[in-house]
Amino acid sequence: MSPFIVILSTGSELTAGRSLDTNSGWIANQLFELGWKVKKFITLPDDPNLILSELQSLQTLAKEKPVLVIMTGGLGPTEDDYTLETVLKLTGKTSYSVEKAKLRLTKIYESRGKEYKDILPNVFRQTFVPEGCKTLDNSVGIAVGFVEVIGENSYLVCMPGVPSEMTEMFKRRLVPELKKLYPRENLLQKTKWLWNIGESLFQNDFIEPNRDEFFKEAEWGVTANRGYIKCIFQSTNQNLLDQIINRLETQYPNIISDDVFSFVHERLLGENLTISVVESCTGGLLGKKLTEQPGSSAYFMGGFLTYSNEMKSQLLGIPSETINSFGAVSEEVAKAMVDGLCLKTGTDFGISITGIAGPDGGSEGKPVGTVCIGIKEPNGETTVFRYVFPGNREAIRENASNTAIFLIYQSLKKRVI
Amino acid sequence: MSPFIVILSTGSELTAGRSLDTNSGWIANQLFELGWKVKKFITLPDDPNLILSELQSLQTLAKEKPVLVIMTGGLGPTEDDYTLETVLKLTGKTSYSVEKAKLRLTKIYESRGKEYKDILPNVFRQTFVPEGCKTLDNSVGIAVGFVEVIGENSYLVCMPGVPSEMTEMFKRRLVPELKKLYPRENLLQKTKWLWNIGESLFQNDFIEPNRDEFFKEAEWGVTANRGYIKCIFQSTNQNLLDQIINRLETQYPNIISDDVFSFVHERLLGENLTISVVESCTGGLLGKKLTEQPGSSAYFMGGFLTYSNEMKSQLLGIPSETINSFGAVSEEVAKAMVDGLCLKTGTDFGISITGIAGPDGGSEGKPVGTVCIGIKEPNGETTVFRYVFPGNREAIRENASNTAIFLIYQSLKKRVI
Repeated sequence: MSPFIVILSTGSELTAGRSLDTNSGWIANQLFELGWKVKKFITLPDDPNLILSELQSLQTLAKEKPVLVIMTGGLGPTEDDYTLETVLKLTGKTSYSVEKAKLRLTKIYESRGKEYKDILPNVFRQTFVPEGCKTLDNSVGIAVGFVEVIGENSYLVCMPGVPSEMTEMFKRRLVPELKKLYPRENLLQKTKWLWNIGESLFQNDFIEPNRDEFFKEAEWGVTANRGYIKCIFQSTNQNLLDQIINRLETQYPNIISDDVFSFVHERLLGENLTISVVESCTGGLLGKKLTEQPGSSAYFMGGFLTYSNEMKSQLLGIPSETINSFGAVSEEVAKAMVDGLCLKTGTDFGISITGIAGPDGGSEGKPVGTVCIGIKEPNGETTVFRYVFPGNREAIRENASNTAIFLIYQSLKKRVI
Repeated sequence: MSPFIVILSTGSELTAGRSLDTNSGWIANQLFELGWKVKKFITLPDDPNLILSELQSLQTLAKEKPVLVIMTGGLGPTEDDYTLETVLKLTGKTSYSVEKAKLRLTKIYESRGKEYKDILPNVFRQTFVPEGCKTLDNSVGIAVGFVEVIGENSYLVCMPGVPSEMTEMFKRRLVPELKKLYPRENLLQKTKWLWNIGESLFQNDFIEPNRDEFFKEAEWGVTANRGYIKCIFQSTNQNLLDQIINRLETQYPNIISDDVFSFVHERLLGENLTISVVESCTGGLLGKKLTEQPGSSAYFMGGFLTYSNEMKSQLLGIPSETINSFGAVSEEVAKAMVDGLCLKTGTDFGISITGIAGPDGGSEGKPVGTVCIGIKEPNGETTVFRYVFPGNREAIRENASNTAIFLIYQSLKKRVI
């Protein structure tokens, strides 16, 4: 039995459009992976009356059916944090300070050379929860989360709005709790990525022909990303899931992958391989992506940003005649860039990117979106790939960087270890 | 008289967390600039029953007070687009095809070598609106928007969910309509950025002491970003706004700025200045940020990614003794990096970043978040700044890159043109 799930986020910065609510989507995505569908998102400003009346409606709804409300925000130390106060009004309960959180807060103060008595009342307030509720420890920040009963099989979950605190609390504290509150069959999930293919094409070519055979007993979902779509399949039937993935791999042998970001990270680490990059149109985005994961310093050495033609010549020694005769965006220059790069850095892998990110600079033969990516593999071979990526400047740059990482993935994948 | 504003977006991809709803925040922001505050965001899946019952509740609410519902999504050609059908159920009206939209659609088909009779019924459906409503032309896509009366001084606005269509329709068609429906005084707005200061400190130090004098007749808002907060002030009184900005500049002379990204872009272009970067912990993020705007190739030349110590020595010739004795994250190395950079690139500005992005690598004297930023100015002077930025790896890297751009801003600001 699945509850009617509502995600409620509070924050005047959200309803004023000054911040984007990324929490609700993240939670919905996590719940989807657990096999639950969210029925509604609600976002309210930091207005205790609006929040209370919303919670009252949800409590009324819980008289008809099981309702799960997951609320984020309003547990902080400032005067516009109203969540606890509002929940106490809703339930008529009193609150108490959670001992563990109090100790944690004291230790944090002590580590800064302050004492228990220095703790400001509004900071201390974050350790309070309603009496008799289930508490959710915060291992990142101060504010304690909690689960309050609001009806038969109905619960109100309150968590901080700070994403790093919320996501940690959700995964470590709330998920085990939810599995106890709403036990269900174990749902299995498989995810694969497909590169440079649209959602609707995938649906036409893969989902529709296999609908009767596969998708009566399995759920599917697709998310579009820059350069790839993520295909998610869910079922309680492991065998069916394996069949789906098998057919997918047979149908799309050249554009299928797993999560390339973590694969590349793990394999470069595991094989003690190094990499360097030289970027033109992406201006540093590929380097940024390759250094997002802690520990990337073991394989990512560095490289060059050769945005201008002068820098391509000056830093890498590419003859200006090469650039002039073939154009800065050409297979020839991409090759010269990656060769020049590896000569200077001596890394196992080298990647070069040169392209037209737009909105200007396109021509008949080289429209905006044209990108050449060169890859030098550990065996010394250099290959250059040419693409025309869709979308605006930002999309083209994201697409080019992600595709470069896909090329590294493919090269690593074919290596015999 | 302001209505109670609700923004309602529909889409199963939103409530599944596969796509992020950027429309609601964008609309709220536009409305805020017009002087209106949004009271609630609601997001629903493509479920006609859930949508109808939500619209019915909002219609009921409109019996108590003026309500403005701005709805996006569900006007497209696919089978899960339910908005028109649901609104017709709500009002009991019939629909008709808007002549202008029909003509436009026909022209689009003809331009693709097809005829009127080729138009698929579900595509044609997008030209329909409820009888007797105010229509909102779509100059980007096909689906027509509309404004339906749902009570006294209460309206339901329906617009497509495709951002490019919605934003165009909002600005060109809806805003003039809203100004007629809810006439009000002209609101003025000023925005300033403050660097490396928290929201609550700003509120304590600036808003509270000036509350009586300024903020009875002016609204304020703050958004937190990586490295800076954006302070927004609104009033119908220009003189009061000027006084607020004046006091802000007096109180925070060293950390105040305008939008540094567009300022730096405009000024580097306008003064024909060039810039190059050398990045360690940010791995390319600063270069990426400096090349986000079209036309940045006029000033951004390129530079180096020296993530590893070997690259710092190999590519820039920094003696390994310097790195070993002071540490890779030190004022000395930041200075050597930017000096080495400018020797190789010869640009007017040079920026170096070296820091500890974490989560590991921190020490007593150099905790995680320690970042040294070197800036070489066009007059040849080099200055190094040292920071300890808060947050996780991503936050520290964003913070460092943004702060580097703030340093360029400050240097450009003090130049006499």
